Amino acid sequence: MIATLYEGNKTFNVIEKEVEAPQPGEVRIKVAYSGVCGTDVHIYHGMMDKRVAMPQTIGHEMSGTIDSIGAHVTGFSVGDKVVVRPLDDRKAKPSDKGFNHICEELNFMGIDTPGSMQQYWNVPAFTLHKLKENTDLKLAALIEPLSVATHDVRLSGLVAGETAVVLGGGPIGLLVAMVAKEVGANVVVSEVNEKRIAKAKAMGLDAVSPMQIDLVDYVREKTAGRLADVVFEVAGVQATLDIMTEIAGIRGRILMVAIHGEKKPVDLFKFFWKELKLIGARVYEKEDYEKSIGLITANGLPFEDMITDVQPLSNIQQVFESIDNNPDGMKVLMDCSL
Amino acid sequence: MIATLYEGNKTFNVIEKEVEAPQPGEVRIKVAYSGVCGTDVHIYHGMMDKRVAMPQTIGHEMSGTIDSIGAHVTGFSVGDKVVVRPLDDRKAKPSDKGFNHICEELNFMGIDTPGSMQQYWNVPAFTLHKLKENTDLKLAALIEPLSVATHDVRLSGLVAGETAVVLGGGPIGLLVAMVAKEVGANVVVSEVNEKRIAKAKAMGLDAVSPMQIDLVDYVREKTAGRLADVVFEVAGVQATLDIMTEIAGIRGRILMVAIHGEKKPVDLFKFFWKELKLIGARVYEKEDYEKSIGLITANGLPFEDMITDVQPLSNIQQVFESIDNNPDGMKVLMDCSL
Repeated sequence: MIATLYEGNKTFNVIEKEVEAPQPGEVRIKVAYSGVCGTDVHIYHGMMDKRVAMPQTIGHEMSGTIDSIGAHVTGFSVGDKVVVRPLDDRKAKPSDKGFNHICEELNFMGIDTPGSMQQYWNVPAFTLHKLKENTDLKLAALIEPLSVATHDVRLSGLVAGETAVVLGGGPIGLLVAMVAKEVGANVVVSEVNEKRIAKAKAMGLDAVSPMQIDLVDYVREKTAGRLADVVFEVAGVQATLDIMTEIAGIRGRILMVAIHGEKKPVDLFKFFWKELKLIGARVYEKEDYEKSIGLITANGLPFEDMITDVQPLSNIQQVFESIDNNPDGMKVLMDCSL
Repeated sequence: MIATLYEGNKTFNVIEKEVEAPQPGEVRIKVAYSGVCGTDVHIYHGMMDKRVAMPQTIGHEMSGTIDSIGAHVTGFSVGDKVVVRPLDDRKAKPSDKGFNHICEELNFMGIDTPGSMQQYWNVPAFTLHKLKENTDLKLAALIEPLSVATHDVRLSGLVAGETAVVLGGGPIGLLVAMVAKEVGANVVVSEVNEKRIAKAKAMGLDAVSPMQIDLVDYVREKTAGRLADVVFEVAGVQATLDIMTEIAGIRGRILMVAIHGEKKPVDLFKFFWKELKLIGARVYEKEDYEKSIGLITANGLPFEDMITDVQPLSNIQQVFESIDNNPDGMKVLMDCSL
């Protein structure tokens, strides 16, 4: 089989190796597609070299079929289409209060342990979600990032008729916007990249550039002065931190989806004044995966539009280099059969 | 009657004036006690001169008895003991979503309109809460700040058995700590002023100085690694903003009680990583007042210890000057009969 290894210094190697038998409690998956996440790009840029034990096979957005089943695994058959929820929470402690998806000693598969950017991947059976036979495995590779979005929207408590503003129209932002719209909310996407705005519009979303309009006025007019009930901060820059507290109305909820690597100025007075809530959201829980699987299976949302490129796994080095040079792209999938 | 007027420039005047008949829908209250709030001290310092129309009678923490009743007021009798919930929300709009206590055009009585630092105060009847006949009017003057605390604790969702850390042991901090303890939580007060620590301890609270111990370690040991379920940020300084995200455990809730006048650095990564919530809390709602009145009436908490001085209203200038020179004091009441 072919596997890829991140070696540090913006370098991937593609190697040949033997497939391994699944250990007790594990299955071996024949990986169909493995998507490139923003986190994978961070790893490629060396930003996570302290955390990633090199050489490492990264990747955690995937779909595949079960190829071999280890001892003590029940409920699965060879050939089943599956996705992996890449959270190995076996070291969870009582002090994690049952929130095992963010437990202190979580192993995130594809970062802390080997991931899906290889042709076969052995994983604990408890991480699997089974898919229906007719599921499109390309779309299924979106279930992991889509579950970030279903988690964010669920934690926001967004309901039909409310107004949600999504700050940042990259892959996660657009998935959040789609899920928010599916809930029945009025959704505005704020994005500065014109090609991403065009993409969002083509997907039926209301997308605007805060460089061209006054976003706060725009939302105020759309809501008869209520402003946003929910704001999703997905962009991770100071400008969106500044606007998130302006654009949220009384008792508005702000979802912190972006990863801010350092302390940044926040208008805490507005949290006090309008009784705002800031809600941190990380990865997903089992029910978020089930919700996402339902959405992908129903295929009533423009998920295909999210996939802007599919490349052979063996091209991994060129793929990461080209992502660096293409800020307009959305989701790139690696075809792991090639 | 005697009334006091804030004139700007750290100056109060005491004047003689005629009592006024209550307008329709109003009552005239004979003010018994009027407490000095941190906000009043801010006003005295000129920090709110843009908002306060001088000369202005300030004051909003009070107790008294009904002295005269205007037309169309029902349910009250002359002599009734009352407190005022000083929120005039008559300009609330649909865009305030029913959260009238923080409506966009709220008039805060005693800041935006005349307040209680006078012998007689005419107020709309809808702001009144009636007290039992045997209520101690000195303690009743604490109902307003206590309602800030009951509001904070209610919005935090704190339940029995959880651990709450209160950052800041001033009047509001200690009231929050008392209410949190009454809920059945384990409470730690963090305060740097030794006299305030001693005060908190005398009131039966677990109070520590983060200058003398490692607060995070202290709370970690007390909670078997869970850390704080709820953090109340009452101090309003960078050091407490820095520690609030450290000391909160997984899915911890942080109540933003303090007023931060400018944008300050916040560790948003920890909000993401531990799925923390920041909850802004401002003033109180009707049910918070009812809760506070119940606590004051039951008098099972060491409220008396909170009142460190009672001074004649006519001494207002000296009172504000002495507060400036006494960081150890807690609540000062003005006796409005004198």
